[in-house]
Amino acid sequence: MTSHSLHPLDDALTLTSTEPGTYAGRTTAGYWNMVGPFGGITAATLLQAVMQHPDRLGEPLSLTVNYAGALAEGPFTLQATPVRTNRSTQHWTLSILQPGGDGSPVVTTTATVVTAVRRETWSLADTPMPQAAAPETLKPTPKGLGVEWLNRYDMRLFTGGLPREWDGTGNSSLTQVWMRDEPPRPLDFCALAALADLFFPRVWLRRAHRVPAGTVSITVYFHASSAQLQATGTGYLLGQARAQEFRNGFFDQTVQLWNEAGTMLATSHQIVYYKE
Amino acid sequence: MTSHSLHPLDDALTLTSTEPGTYAGRTTAGYWNMVGPFGGITAATLLQAVMQHPDRLGEPLSLTVNYAGALAEGPFTLQATPVRTNRSTQHWTLSILQPGGDGSPVVTTTATVVTAVRRETWSLADTPMPQAAAPETLKPTPKGLGVEWLNRYDMRLFTGGLPREWDGTGNSSLTQVWMRDEPPRPLDFCALAALADLFFPRVWLRRAHRVPAGTVSITVYFHASSAQLQATGTGYLLGQARAQEFRNGFFDQTVQLWNEAGTMLATSHQIVYYKE
Repeated sequence: MTSHSLHPLDDALTLTSTEPGTYAGRTTAGYWNMVGPFGGITAATLLQAVMQHPDRLGEPLSLTVNYAGALAEGPFTLQATPVRTNRSTQHWTLSILQPGGDGSPVVTTTATVVTAVRRETWSLADTPMPQAAAPETLKPTPKGLGVEWLNRYDMRLFTGGLPREWDGTGNSSLTQVWMRDEPPRPLDFCALAALADLFFPRVWLRRAHRVPAGTVSITVYFHASSAQLQATGTGYLLGQARAQEFRNGFFDQTVQLWNEAGTMLATSHQIVYYKE
Repeated sequence: MTSHSLHPLDDALTLTSTEPGTYAGRTTAGYWNMVGPFGGITAATLLQAVMQHPDRLGEPLSLTVNYAGALAEGPFTLQATPVRTNRSTQHWTLSILQPGGDGSPVVTTTATVVTAVRRETWSLADTPMPQAAAPETLKPTPKGLGVEWLNRYDMRLFTGGLPREWDGTGNSSLTQVWMRDEPPRPLDFCALAALADLFFPRVWLRRAHRVPAGTVSITVYFHASSAQLQATGTGYLLGQARAQEFRNGFFDQTVQLWNEAGTMLATSHQIVYYKE
């Protein structure tokens, strides 16, 4: 990559407004997962539509994305509508559509976003960042799963890495990892949304057993301001993920993301399908 | 209440289908909060529309509700659309509308729901229920806040109750409470959705300081089947809530709900506005 080329994330986030609230986009090879794009890039793309919308009020506060079906390779239509604007909050509904088998549009993804104008108030960090060695002292974790999107991230797992043996001996669902875009890119809300979905399925770790799994719905709560994201720059984030319950085909995952200075940037949750 | 009268929850959840996917409902005095209905009853009502819909596939898996504006006392229109139905999951978008100042409809609430047909798989409880004295050995917590909806619940707080003195001395955001509908009512998905929103604002507890606060967005992940809810019956649930981060006008809250047998029924998260 030269200094003049587009970062793969910015390439993936390229949306063209065709009419107010309607955008044309397309999947990119750089974030391809097994049967569609990495879920995090889809979340980031939905948020990008809100960020680009001329009527946006404030900065992202919450984002929920429901993965109704895999996006096919190629173009898609994204609709983003501010359905209610208050004095300091704005509520958005979004969807991604692709042509179905008969050519009529099919919903692949639905989402809601809340943006807010934030004011300085009493604030308190109630979840300390875990102790961790500095990211530069750790080696990048080998990818090993053969999917392209993993090459877009520098991950340095220090707790709860991928099991070395799939032998059913797992005893914890906790992963802790330093992570950032690869190549490094200054952090913004869209990049942060994608990073919240970076963790491999908790069921693989807890069982030391690999089964088909995929996110059904993810929610991200943004605690950081754009100024705090700018201050984070191209630094690493410390991501922490754990499951709370595995039950009959679905487990949940809770996530916290701090920057290197120990500021909580986002918390996130998802419900994930698994087989067997 | 006689055995023939309608439970207040069933009264509040009464929806009349006016055309496919469109329902007429109305607020009820029994769940009134300060400037609108208790947020939990609005979440339950949205889920009720999905439960009543003739095209529903499976049982609730996730529910996200965005509180765009307070519902006014009186009638409302609820729209529930299954935007995509897969083999074992179904994706819904919902909204509640009321007439605005000029008579044209205004969105008060948006929501998404995922329902799923679940199959028996390997399962594991990864978050043990906290130790607690049996609910019958504890006294019901006095309500004390002067809002009507609190009278619809029997709550027995044993960790992190409302501060006795609003003196700024708080040191934890953790609340643990036994809770159920009052009068007792057999548990179902709608009742569970409402119970997930039962906790007073974490900012009051953490600061021992009372400030205006209100939920902006809540997500509930349902782990229980309807059979497990039936088995729970009119028993108490153990609810646990804590905040992770308070920042410039918004904090998040994570919630776990178990039945008395120690089965995790639901996990939930919300982002909450607060002033000052």
